[in-house]
Amino acid sequence: MTHGEAGPDGSFPMHPIGTVRSPYADRTQVPKGPGAKHDAEGVLEIGAEFEAGLQDIEGFSHLYVLWVFHQAQGYELLATPPTDDRPHGVFATRSPQRPNPIGLTVVRLLRREGRRLRVRGVDMLDGTPILDVKPYLSNVPEAELKRGWMTDAELRGARD
Amino acid sequence: MTHGEAGPDGSFPMHPIGTVRSPYADRTQVPKGPGAKHDAEGVLEIGAEFEAGLQDIEGFSHLYVLWVFHQAQGYELLATPPTDDRPHGVFATRSPQRPNPIGLTVVRLLRREGRRLRVRGVDMLDGTPILDVKPYLSNVPEAELKRGWMTDAELRGARD
Repeated sequence: MTHGEAGPDGSFPMHPIGTVRSPYADRTQVPKGPGAKHDAEGVLEIGAEFEAGLQDIEGFSHLYVLWVFHQAQGYELLATPPTDDRPHGVFATRSPQRPNPIGLTVVRLLRREGRRLRVRGVDMLDGTPILDVKPYLSNVPEAELKRGWMTDAELRGARD
Repeated sequence: MTHGEAGPDGSFPMHPIGTVRSPYADRTQVPKGPGAKHDAEGVLEIGAEFEAGLQDIEGFSHLYVLWVFHQAQGYELLATPPTDDRPHGVFATRSPQRPNPIGLTVVRLLRREGRRLRVRGVDMLDGTPILDVKPYLSNVPEAELKRGWMTDAELRGARD
């Protein structure tokens, strides 16, 4: 099957390019909720056959990592996140139980060691399959940024 | 096959949840290069079976859209982007010719009309399959942000 072409069932097959090495063996260990800090260090181990694709990545301070929620089972369109006591649509949350179980994390690149990228800010489990790495290029203007129910939940939490 | 489970060939099948409606019929029409403005408006048409997953998305000003480069053919580990005259590793670029042809765009949510999200900032082609939508929550501290070869290319461009 060629790239960017759907299979007979309309799906697009994605193949891992590497694996996350993280201090988290299971999901209970990953910090969650408002104020959770994601400053854990980890390694993005890229497959040897893809190492050439890392050229010049050292110059970027931050990277997007796209990965698979490989332990997710099925999905729910309404999810009650750990940061709130009310349900929200799955596309307004970062729930792992999504129609396509793809995770997105912004990490800080600390250094490159060949095909291993040492990074800060991992929230993935050890052994997580990596689908893609992209340079982080620009921010949204802070004055324009609104975080909907998350802000409401934080305000309610602070009041209670 | 269950969610988050690899197929016999080690791949993860992803199924579109909707389609991008954009003013761009082919890639030559998408603004590229340093200073390219992505303020085109478009619509994320989410499938009726996923509409419940949009609940409360209206509260967010910006969204991540994960989508398929459905017209990409194969991939190259070294790519010469339109913003430079030198090749860089594909994971240090936003080239469509990536091992997994997944695109990532930050859009501004203008309004929701049922299962249609009107957004600003599309750089996808009309008809692009959407894999996921996530809330955009926070920026990287500006003082920490480094953009490697992109900054170098812009400086060279300004000097030439």
